[in-house]
Amino acid sequence: MLTNQMRGFLDSHRVARFATVDLGGQPHVVPICYAVSNDTAYFTIDEKPKRSTDKPLKRIRNLQQNPHVAFVVDRYDEDWTRLGWVMVQGEAALLDSGKEHAQAQRLLKARYPQLDGMQIGDLPVVAIRIKRVVSWGSLDTA
Amino acid sequence: MLTNQMRGFLDSHRVARFATVDLGGQPHVVPICYAVSNDTAYFTIDEKPKRSTDKPLKRIRNLQQNPHVAFVVDRYDEDWTRLGWVMVQGEAALLDSGKEHAQAQRLLKARYPQLDGMQIGDLPVVAIRIKRVVSWGSLDTA
Repeated sequence: MLTNQMRGFLDSHRVARFATVDLGGQPHVVPICYAVSNDTAYFTIDEKPKRSTDKPLKRIRNLQQNPHVAFVVDRYDEDWTRLGWVMVQGEAALLDSGKEHAQAQRLLKARYPQLDGMQIGDLPVVAIRIKRVVSWGSLDTA
Repeated sequence: MLTNQMRGFLDSHRVARFATVDLGGQPHVVPICYAVSNDTAYFTIDEKPKRSTDKPLKRIRNLQQNPHVAFVVDRYDEDWTRLGWVMVQGEAALLDSGKEHAQAQRLLKARYPQLDGMQIGDLPVVAIRIKRVVSWGSLDTA
């Protein structure tokens, strides 16, 4: 689904913006640090779904109610001939443990040395199963 | 609704990521170049809603069907103590002409010299009436 050029563009950028939707049709969009493997994108959550307040993060409540999600990775440049983006739409699943959960955390730690010092082992991972990809503009990463 | 610090953060950044939702609850998210005035954010569309194909841009069809939208402006830095974002949720209106439409285009041209050479006068503007704002992390613009 992702072309090699799209994969290169996603791999060469450091932050995506991730959109979820609540049951009332209201979107929510925040930055995420991500890794892509095959046709799934992953990010980890820096809080457990059940906090002491019993009120999980809005993005998590949204995707539990509505698994349809999207994210965009883009390049901004004051030279607008260099603008480009890849937008991914998919379905989100929350992984609490298991082989894919552990592998996703390894991928994320490999991409983000900032995670190395953190105890992320028991934090959930969001897996985004990629269903559709749209791109625009220049995806040149040279 | 926006604090002075949030306004400063929005004004000091160049690109936002804008999310809309279709009737099936599927989000769509793309980068936009924006300007904020009072409690409204604006961006212009580089195509007319009715193209020769009669198929307007997906983001426009979405907001005509569901006016609930959101955008995020964020700072990424490899020093994660400097991460920060402002997420705005609101209702979108499409402006085709009139005083506010002209004023929005002036604001956008003032912020983006790239628009100066372009004939944007008859292009529609999306106005996002800000209803709710959430921020996280460092919004320091110094």
